[in-house]
Amino acid sequence: MTYSVAVSGASGYAGGEILRLLANHPDIEIRTVTAHSNAGQKLSEHQPHLRSLAHLTLQDTTPETLAGHDIVFLALPHGQSGQYTDALGDVPLVIDAGADHRLTSQSAWDAFYGGAFHEPWTYGVPELLVAGAKQREQLRGATRIAAPGCNASTVSLSLAPGVAAGVIDASDIVTVLAVGPSGAGKSLKTHLLGSEILGSANPYAVGGSHRHIPEIRQALAATSGAEPDGIRISFTPVIVPMARGILATSTAPIAPGVTDAEIRAAWESAYGGETFVQLLPEGSLPRTADVLGANTALLGLAIDRAANRVVVVAAVDNLVKGTAGAAIQSMNIALGLAETTALSINGVAP
Amino acid sequence: MTYSVAVSGASGYAGGEILRLLANHPDIEIRTVTAHSNAGQKLSEHQPHLRSLAHLTLQDTTPETLAGHDIVFLALPHGQSGQYTDALGDVPLVIDAGADHRLTSQSAWDAFYGGAFHEPWTYGVPELLVAGAKQREQLRGATRIAAPGCNASTVSLSLAPGVAAGVIDASDIVTVLAVGPSGAGKSLKTHLLGSEILGSANPYAVGGSHRHIPEIRQALAATSGAEPDGIRISFTPVIVPMARGILATSTAPIAPGVTDAEIRAAWESAYGGETFVQLLPEGSLPRTADVLGANTALLGLAIDRAANRVVVVAAVDNLVKGTAGAAIQSMNIALGLAETTALSINGVAP
Amino acid sequence: MTYSVAVSGASGYAGGEILRLLANHPDIEIRTVTAHSNAGQKLSEHQPHLRSLAHLTLQDTTPETLAGHDIVFLALPHGQSGQYTDALGDVPLVIDAGADHRLTSQSAWDAFYGGAFHEPWTYGVPELLVAGAKQREQLRGATRIAAPGCNASTVSLSLAPGVAAGVIDASDIVTVLAVGPSGAGKSLKTHLLGSEILGSANPYAVGGSHRHIPEIRQALAATSGAEPDGIRISFTPVIVPMARGILATSTAPIAPGVTDAEIRAAWESAYGGETFVQLLPEGSLPRTADVLGANTALLGLAIDRAANRVVVVAAVDNLVKGTAGAAIQSMNIALGLAETTALSINGVAP
Amino acid sequence: MTYSVAVSGASGYAGGEILRLLANHPDIEIRTVTAHSNAGQKLSEHQPHLRSLAHLTLQDTTPETLAGHDIVFLALPHGQSGQYTDALGDVPLVIDAGADHRLTSQSAWDAFYGGAFHEPWTYGVPELLVAGAKQREQLRGATRIAAPGCNASTVSLSLAPGVAAGVIDASDIVTVLAVGPSGAGKSLKTHLLGSEILGSANPYAVGGSHRHIPEIRQALAATSGAEPDGIRISFTPVIVPMARGILATSTAPIAPGVTDAEIRAAWESAYGGETFVQLLPEGSLPRTADVLGANTALLGLAIDRAANRVVVVAAVDNLVKGTAGAAIQSMNIALGLAETTALSINGVAP
Repeated sequence: MTYSVAVSGASGYAGGEILRLLANHPDIEIRTVTAHSNAGQKLSEHQPHLRSLAHLTLQDTTPETLAGHDIVFLALPHGQSGQYTDALGDVPLVIDAGADHRLTSQSAWDAFYGGAFHEPWTYGVPELLVAGAKQREQLRGATRIAAPGCNASTVSLSLAPGVAAGVIDASDIVTVLAVGPSGAGKSLKTHLLGSEILGSANPYAVGGSHRHIPEIRQALAATSGAEPDGIRISFTPVIVPMARGILATSTAPIAPGVTDAEIRAAWESAYGGETFVQLLPEGSLPRTADVLGANTALLGLAIDRAANRVVVVAAVDNLVKGTAGAAIQSMNIALGLAETTALSINGVAP
Repeated sequence: MTYSVAVSGASGYAGGEILRLLANHPDIEIRTVTAHSNAGQKLSEHQPHLRSLAHLTLQDTTPETLAGHDIVFLALPHGQSGQYTDALGDVPLVIDAGADHRLTSQSAWDAFYGGAFHEPWTYGVPELLVAGAKQREQLRGATRIAAPGCNASTVSLSLAPGVAAGVIDASDIVTVLAVGPSGAGKSLKTHLLGSEILGSANPYAVGGSHRHIPEIRQALAATSGAEPDGIRISFTPVIVPMARGILATSTAPIAPGVTDAEIRAAWESAYGGETFVQLLPEGSLPRTADVLGANTALLGLAIDRAANRVVVVAAVDNLVKGTAGAAIQSMNIALGLAETTALSINGVAP
Repeated sequence: MTYSVAVSGASGYAGGEILRLLANHPDIEIRTVTAHSNAGQKLSEHQPHLRSLAHLTLQDTTPETLAGHDIVFLALPHGQSGQYTDALGDVPLVIDAGADHRLTSQSAWDAFYGGAFHEPWTYGVPELLVAGAKQREQLRGATRIAAPGCNASTVSLSLAPGVAAGVIDASDIVTVLAVGPSGAGKSLKTHLLGSEILGSANPYAVGGSHRHIPEIRQALAATSGAEPDGIRISFTPVIVPMARGILATSTAPIAPGVTDAEIRAAWESAYGGETFVQLLPEGSLPRTADVLGANTALLGLAIDRAANRVVVVAAVDNLVKGTAGAAIQSMNIALGLAETTALSINGVAP
Repeated sequence: MTYSVAVSGASGYAGGEILRLLANHPDIEIRTVTAHSNAGQKLSEHQPHLRSLAHLTLQDTTPETLAGHDIVFLALPHGQSGQYTDALGDVPLVIDAGADHRLTSQSAWDAFYGGAFHEPWTYGVPELLVAGAKQREQLRGATRIAAPGCNASTVSLSLAPGVAAGVIDASDIVTVLAVGPSGAGKSLKTHLLGSEILGSANPYAVGGSHRHIPEIRQALAATSGAEPDGIRISFTPVIVPMARGILATSTAPIAPGVTDAEIRAAWESAYGGETFVQLLPEGSLPRTADVLGANTALLGLAIDRAANRVVVVAAVDNLVKGTAGAAIQSMNIALGLAETTALSINGVAP
């Protein structure tokens, strides 16, 4: 069976990446691509790298253009997905790459986003530990999926095994991320200009204001059955001069009395059978180039007894495993297709 | 008076930066530049950007070529300075840009470096708080100066005000740094190749092994009069694709009972009168491009009550304020010259 | 049928890229990977991005380890392939990614390379015009293939249609290329260090010494049936801070009396039916990011009557269409497989 | 004497660089900084690297705010300077960093810019050969100066010695430039976003449309006394991932009968006594990093007899020698100050 697909926000970075991956998917027909201000233009003007889709023209993003497909991807700024979801009631599978359907807590939504609160959809991070199982189980047969925030899923995948196993203390997490500017989208803002980004490391949203914080707290709480309030995280993103990639360094205090072997075993057992989330051998550390274009999250684990902290360094391509790849991996699971279809495990390096 | 200067390691990055700054110093005559394997070659083959010094030829680094100057800069790999210091007994001022004379604790030296231990020299971070005063006072009239490690001084300057004022808990510091590869010198190693660095964020020395850790513990202990053992730090450097720069994100728990105003006041009072270490206004964050080529450390301070942590983000040019600028600022102080001579406060941006 | 493959030079950039592409090839079993100084080590230490091949161990590059496969790829420094080719007499298909079997003229070899001259093999640029046909025809059933030089094939593909159609004058070509450092391989050389490459544009081999010059002259001569001596090219490569990519700007005088339409028609007719070499619409220009990881060469054509020159700008990923992709595309043709197997037309952008 | 200065366009890249250089000028008092949409804001919000000027506030750019100074710098988009020049009649020295007063030919202005044509001012490239003398002579005592286009002055300085000496044929110049995006200013355009620039080489204005072409033709014609129509140039700029810098590769046919020594002598005699324009020794090539932040143009010269072309590679910091440094060097000359005041010959590398 071939599924017909519509992708909204197709002129942006997330939409473009969804299209790049779907273009190689044997079970998918990309029927409709939509945009707002760019409607009427050729897709190739905005996504010149998608040569196999150069014949497509951007239609206006409306409920009508999106309806009538087997699958709809929403790659819109946060707060904009909600207006379409009602009209897409008949669409068998809708996947939102935005934030609108990620949070279960309205108060968290109000504090970090604001505007209308929407019901949470099934969270699209298959490998995440949730109350002893994997989130993958929730995704089977799902019809409404919320793809994760790129930084949020990276951090949640980094720490969930330790939280679930009780070998780290989730009340004092510190995460600092080196991130590429594509995570901020194609917005025309001075601080995103090439001249500002090149040769510089630029922090933003320092001090607890980043919108992915409640998403991490929610995910890690779900892992252990704790309350989100018990998960505390100091979260600092730093934009660095690479178009893509997240290198997240996450640390948490070592729980009293646990051995190094027990710590390492927590991650090994969590991800031992996974294709797309891999713990590197002891002493190895991941680099973002190693996952460029791939749906792979690579984790390196170190135990610093002098600082009494576990350090997990994770490398993820923000547009693939962080967004579009997560969306398509979740789609594959929801539809009962092979989970790895159209997703690469190998990065493009150097 | 004009001081005659010899610079060893003149074909490397630290040596080159010392020369770049000294070339604009009105009281300095660069008389001798030395190197090891590159001896006999023109300086311009190794430092083609130093056009005003293009006439110089690299001599062999020996006690004899270095002796007989008013000032000698040692910009050598760690462990190599010691062999020259005895022979330089008559040189009025020797400044070591290497690590050999930084640490006061032999056990720390043995644990992180190894090889012969050398006596500590006066530490070259003028603005550092030391037991209620500034390190500047120790540098006046100093004859042997140890320039700091670039990451170490960045972190120590970031946190010393909070440690000295008792508004943060120095027993659980977490620092993650985005750093440029020039901090690793001109070593021919695969992981330093352009192809490996471009487009990637690459962590190293994760888990407590970085050599700047004991230097930070020593500095922060001296700030508060505590023991170095009481200073604990999780320290993770990440190489990012910019030739120069350190963007250090340092966090520490907020001490019980202190107010936001008290926290901010600690940094304001520490650096209010300083030229080269500046606390940015509330809400402003530093970027490494803003200090490129400058001797300036810019600090941004955020207080994250949800995470119960103070976050200090510091931007430093590793080769200037982190190394060569610190050396020359210290030299200026030692010689009684105007402290800012030949040092820029403004960065080269974009 | 599944073909068994050995890849030599598997710890280098070209070898790594051959492996990255072959890993997705349904008809290929990667049986042996070899290296010289790195023999005995895990492939993953040198190619950490190739997660699906992380189980492989590098064997020593010897005639014995390479023999006995259906296909052997040689990704060795120039001058080293020759020693293996005799011993590989029984191997049905050998593809050399090095220069040893590219040139038909011993005098050109002597002038630009030196050392033993080897017989030319079938040149691996399928879309290249050769005496009215495409090089593809020569590749069908070929058993010994010389993959092209990355810069050479980029320039040859850029200009061959104009030369073949007689609409440009090939005796005064000027080409300047912005290239990523991966084209220079993993060699440990100071000028390839990240600190030297970042933030800088660095020319090399200026003035007619680059080794790809005779290869271009040979290819363009073959296109038109002219003598290589009649093809003259000023060729200047500039290393710029991107890991991969070639952006080649090639200009040649407009032949007397030809119209703009005739010029454009030359390229349109040459590449109208091609998948991997595409002429962009008038006014569109290619960018290297658009072909990152892809086997695609994108060409933009402009006609500058004021300067009396045709300008062709070509974007190629040096490791894919420039090397490994060309090798595998040629392999597919030689074996009678679908030409596009395991090769992407879409780039990874941004 | 201290000169009072106003800088318009002070929130942009050119204006910022003028300020960075003037901040170190002992004879200048920066009294007024102005902007349009950013008027009323602190300069530090837009130029956070200019710490020594952090106390300044941007005023509105009006004839009134600019009048009454000894010197006014106009760093405005092309077409906007003209409206101020009348009102600045009493200002002793006005320097325009924009294009409005560069071209002497109205037809060239109309063809490449359009809008009102303004009278040409004294061209601010002191080292340029003009009819047997240097442009420096024209600048002494000048009261209205047009700073050059960054690419234009780079190319003109590259080729003027050869044109003046008659050793190259200026009717078939080909120039390709690798340029940083800061040359395009702070404009909010999608193709200038960091995500688009990083990891990519992006050509623009291909085929003869770049606005610096008539400026080059004018300058080279003035060098030799020829008509601009006799100077023909194929000019292709390529944006590469470095914030600053121009690496211009310019080639022209060797004039019949001239020797290599004659060719090289043309450049040596032109620039032998210059501080800021330097011909590198034979075999040496310039890199943009070597001139970062410096007012230096480095030239490398190669003679390619096989291609019958002279190749000149020039490295310039587009914001310094290309714009702001040229403006201040010209100002120094106009005022009778030491020409090198406040200008660095040494670059900031690596």
